[in-house]
Amino acid sequence: MQMNGHRTRLHLLPIALWALVLAGASVQAAGETLPSWNEGATKARIVAFVQAVTDPTGKDYVAPAARVAVFDNDGTLWSEQPLYFQAAFAFDTVKAMAARDPAIAANPALAAAAKGDLNALVEVIAITHGNTTSDEFAERVRQWTKTARHPTLHRRYTELTFQPMRELLDYLEANGFSTWIVSGGGVEFMRVFSQEVYGIPPERVIGSSIKTKYELRNGVPVIVRLPEIEFVDDKEWKPIGIHKAIGKRPIAAFGNSDGDFQMLEWTTSGPGPRLGMIVHHDDAAREFAYDRDSHVGKLERGLDEAGARGWSLISVRNDWKTVYTPRQ
Amino acid sequence: MQMNGHRTRLHLLPIALWALVLAGASVQAAGETLPSWNEGATKARIVAFVQAVTDPTGKDYVAPAARVAVFDNDGTLWSEQPLYFQAAFAFDTVKAMAARDPAIAANPALAAAAKGDLNALVEVIAITHGNTTSDEFAERVRQWTKTARHPTLHRRYTELTFQPMRELLDYLEANGFSTWIVSGGGVEFMRVFSQEVYGIPPERVIGSSIKTKYELRNGVPVIVRLPEIEFVDDKEWKPIGIHKAIGKRPIAAFGNSDGDFQMLEWTTSGPGPRLGMIVHHDDAAREFAYDRDSHVGKLERGLDEAGARGWSLISVRNDWKTVYTPRQ
Repeated sequence: MQMNGHRTRLHLLPIALWALVLAGASVQAAGETLPSWNEGATKARIVAFVQAVTDPTGKDYVAPAARVAVFDNDGTLWSEQPLYFQAAFAFDTVKAMAARDPAIAANPALAAAAKGDLNALVEVIAITHGNTTSDEFAERVRQWTKTARHPTLHRRYTELTFQPMRELLDYLEANGFSTWIVSGGGVEFMRVFSQEVYGIPPERVIGSSIKTKYELRNGVPVIVRLPEIEFVDDKEWKPIGIHKAIGKRPIAAFGNSDGDFQMLEWTTSGPGPRLGMIVHHDDAAREFAYDRDSHVGKLERGLDEAGARGWSLISVRNDWKTVYTPRQ
Repeated sequence: MQMNGHRTRLHLLPIALWALVLAGASVQAAGETLPSWNEGATKARIVAFVQAVTDPTGKDYVAPAARVAVFDNDGTLWSEQPLYFQAAFAFDTVKAMAARDPAIAANPALAAAAKGDLNALVEVIAITHGNTTSDEFAERVRQWTKTARHPTLHRRYTELTFQPMRELLDYLEANGFSTWIVSGGGVEFMRVFSQEVYGIPPERVIGSSIKTKYELRNGVPVIVRLPEIEFVDDKEWKPIGIHKAIGKRPIAAFGNSDGDFQMLEWTTSGPGPRLGMIVHHDDAAREFAYDRDSHVGKLERGLDEAGARGWSLISVRNDWKTVYTPRQ
């Protein structure tokens, strides 16, 4: 290929940028990074890991293309109590649909759901998440995130993201990582706000999905969502979701429940430096406190095996100075 | 978030980089770009499109995050005659397996395949592509790309990539696009060489897939390939594959057969500036000449409708100065 002046400048600049990133990482004092994290073993481990994999002279150096970090969403990047926020979206949506459509109001499962019955959730999701085009669904999610409020915390759901984790995403990106969401939540649900809320673009969101098909409506192509589950991105399917979308094994994984166990196992059993961390919800005063007995975000095996597997627990109470992202 | 000096520098640099990219694109004379393309309407259209979407003062400006360009692989980025190169891999692999294993040699379908029977291909793919771990499969592909030679062109298959298309990929990337492969070929097959050959990382390769599962073997997690088709990324499923992996509609699409029709339709029916192009194989002297009657890469509807849909044909004979990438 002909190397004219324009191309040459373009090729050199990223190198200069990387040099600066690397230099910046190595001189950066721990106190300057991750300001919402308390000093302690957890923060120190994150910073040491990032310094090790970005130091081109060190034995643990990892090339930028392999610096893949994966994050669960519910309970890891934002709260998930008293029930997954996407379930709240489904309940809110079915209530609105039932108010407009007597046939929906007459469906016993949906009537139960409208009263908050969690067991009716599967049918609610089929009704509220299928039978739309992808564009219509995204618009519905967008409207909901602008208006709906958490029942006890009285904030918009997108204001219930964890500030320390948002700083961690930025810190990793600034150090040449690519950060990905790997969630049991619906991929088309999360993609509506992932860029704005986490700085993660749609193509780096992996999640559960329903089947879709390509269709012409009056000659105009649309993608139609069908009321049928395609992929549940949870437990042993998280490594599969990662493999399908990324085709590389991550070097760092962050989760909070046993649904993330295999994602951490897959990530941390590869060769070279690896980081596995579990957010432990132990702060009833500022957020929620739950683990072994929770119906949402149950954490049992992770608690039992984290030590032996070299995974760190992130204590919300002790490790985080601030929990939620300040309102804009 | 605290904005210390390190962070501030990092945030400013990408802006400076973009400014340079944009400035570079707008001053770049057509003669300096795409050196393996002949001057003419096709090249002029590509350059005009790129200039339009990167000009921040123009009405057709597209933000970098939305500059998604998708490329078919077989027949678009590399040759596909006399049969898809992945089929050649499957045949070569089954011959090697039959030489070692009498049970495979005794299977009638595989015996037929070993003699080159294309109808036996489905069974051959099941045998050769499943029942391995993903790591083992990737290693098998890697070895094959290093040793196998095209039957008539006598080059390694990875040396049969189209130099003009490789320049186009680089040109788009240099102008802030993200380029993706969207192929009917197997995603785990293409990912082995996509970075080295096209500069496209594994996470930007979309393709057909077989089912996989996560498994512990002697306590070590592996991803196992199962002999069962999961997704065929062809025809009306290409827009679905794009939607699943990227979650955005591309603004430019390049294909060569009717298997790419819906990908071009989906791409070019969105609002704003759009580019759809079809590589037309009309050069029997330097490559192959085929379209309507070909058993591989059949192009019929695309030829008939390209004009009315505003898609351009790329003539291998007239538009390309060079066909194949020079040997390294």
